Amino acid sequence: MLVSHKKLLVEWGHCDPAGIVFFPQYLAWFDDCTTALFLDAGMPIQSLFKEYGVIGIPVVDVRARFILPSKFGDELTVESTVTEFGKSSFVVRHQITKAGALAVEGFTTRVWTGPDPNDPSKMKSRALPKEVIARLSAG
Amino acid sequence: MLVSHKKLLVEWGHCDPAGIVFFPQYLAWFDDCTTALFLDAGMPIQSLFKEYGVIGIPVVDVRARFILPSKFGDELTVESTVTEFGKSSFVVRHQITKAGALAVEGFTTRVWTGPDPNDPSKMKSRALPKEVIARLSAG
Amino acid sequence: MLVSHKKLLVEWGHCDPAGIVFFPQYLAWFDDCTTALFLDAGMPIQSLFKEYGVIGIPVVDVRARFILPSKFGDELTVESTVTEFGKSSFVVRHQITKAGALAVEGFTTRVWTGPDPNDPSKMKSRALPKEVIARLSAG
Amino acid sequence: MLVSHKKLLVEWGHCDPAGIVFFPQYLAWFDDCTTALFLDAGMPIQSLFKEYGVIGIPVVDVRARFILPSKFGDELTVESTVTEFGKSSFVVRHQITKAGALAVEGFTTRVWTGPDPNDPSKMKSRALPKEVIARLSAG
Repeated sequence: MLVSHKKLLVEWGHCDPAGIVFFPQYLAWFDDCTTALFLDAGMPIQSLFKEYGVIGIPVVDVRARFILPSKFGDELTVESTVTEFGKSSFVVRHQITKAGALAVEGFTTRVWTGPDPNDPSKMKSRALPKEVIARLSAG
Repeated sequence: MLVSHKKLLVEWGHCDPAGIVFFPQYLAWFDDCTTALFLDAGMPIQSLFKEYGVIGIPVVDVRARFILPSKFGDELTVESTVTEFGKSSFVVRHQITKAGALAVEGFTTRVWTGPDPNDPSKMKSRALPKEVIARLSAG
Repeated sequence: MLVSHKKLLVEWGHCDPAGIVFFPQYLAWFDDCTTALFLDAGMPIQSLFKEYGVIGIPVVDVRARFILPSKFGDELTVESTVTEFGKSSFVVRHQITKAGALAVEGFTTRVWTGPDPNDPSKMKSRALPKEVIARLSAG
Repeated sequence: MLVSHKKLLVEWGHCDPAGIVFFPQYLAWFDDCTTALFLDAGMPIQSLFKEYGVIGIPVVDVRARFILPSKFGDELTVESTVTEFGKSSFVVRHQITKAGALAVEGFTTRVWTGPDPNDPSKMKSRALPKEVIARLSAG
């Protein structure tokens, strides 16, 4: 599987009154890292969505463990890769490390989604294109 | 168990380019709802933390399913309750409904945390006070 | 002019390591309060935008003074009203008070915006409909 | 004056249903860029605050103009510099450019703030240290 790497810097505004990263921020980073994974696979999401008439790849399931807290100024590294493909969904694993130690691990299940042909104001899952699977599996 | 209810209004800034709530926002709401749960239990977190010398109740594990998307202007209702107590941790279940249908279900495991006696710049879990367990179990 | 009121509760996730509201959050609230102002004027933005073919009312200018800090658990009140109309723009003033004292004052200039007729992927300002001006001026 | 440069990537979660960056995000970036400015001046905020017993440098005033919208995937550059020093405050100007064109310009006034000696639960402004002024003026 293709593995994507991204560096993150913990900013003041990411942290809460306990001085540590407010946990929903990690989920936002998972999203940014999925974008980076697609880019590394040669499929920038902005053009990919247009090409396939896709609206988005909404998350339908997330699991995450927060092992080590991070503070303002910490430098984090994220390793992201697909761990599973379904018919229209896929699971991305994100491992965030701090100074070499695993700080957060998360899994997001995402669905390849376009407008519902019967009601374009609604969304409907679609079969994952083979090319998308192939490129995310490369490496 | 005590059950807390909270109403949420989906604002423009909660939504992404697909026009639906960006999923980390739900996790931020889980946090707000945990605050509301403690308030309904007669323990406003602000004074509770001071009373017990606690820094926070950081989330160490989260699981969530996103079943129905929500859009700008949607009115949501959240029902929050503890489903499990550990020695220093507890699990809160949040069920978000939209027009009576379950839209999101999540479970957050939180740890009762104070400064580490050996290094106050670090954090350490503490045993959950009996009073806290009793009040969250009431009803 | 119509004046809209909204109550806000400062949540844990709104605050930074200094224990006070991270200032961009106030700007997000200004947005929520503008939505509430339109709703109070009898024009829910969701249906208003569709009716007029408008994409949004992006902010082109903001000024704000942060007079008193607010902390986790504080209850705030916001008073919002239009202070000026231009051809396609309008200025909304937001006054946030805490226990009766002015905590934040801000002015946002917004533009009534639709797709550019020459390039629908771009946005273009439009003349503010008279009905919108009339309703925001009422009261 | 010292000028600091920072690159930003517009992520999916930074954008709203109109497909453009939700304006409070720019203010959060102003904050990140102020952190980068201090770092470039040889004063990482994390250690600087501890050294001087400072809690934070809260923003008391902000002005910003949003000239060009930015979309998911856009690469932005920010140039940040102090434009004015007061006794305990300073103004930072941030200019965000996209493909060479000015997209956003903002000015934030910040105050050097420590605990109030009479009531440590409150905050009080302090005179800006000469070293801080000297380092931010360098270049």
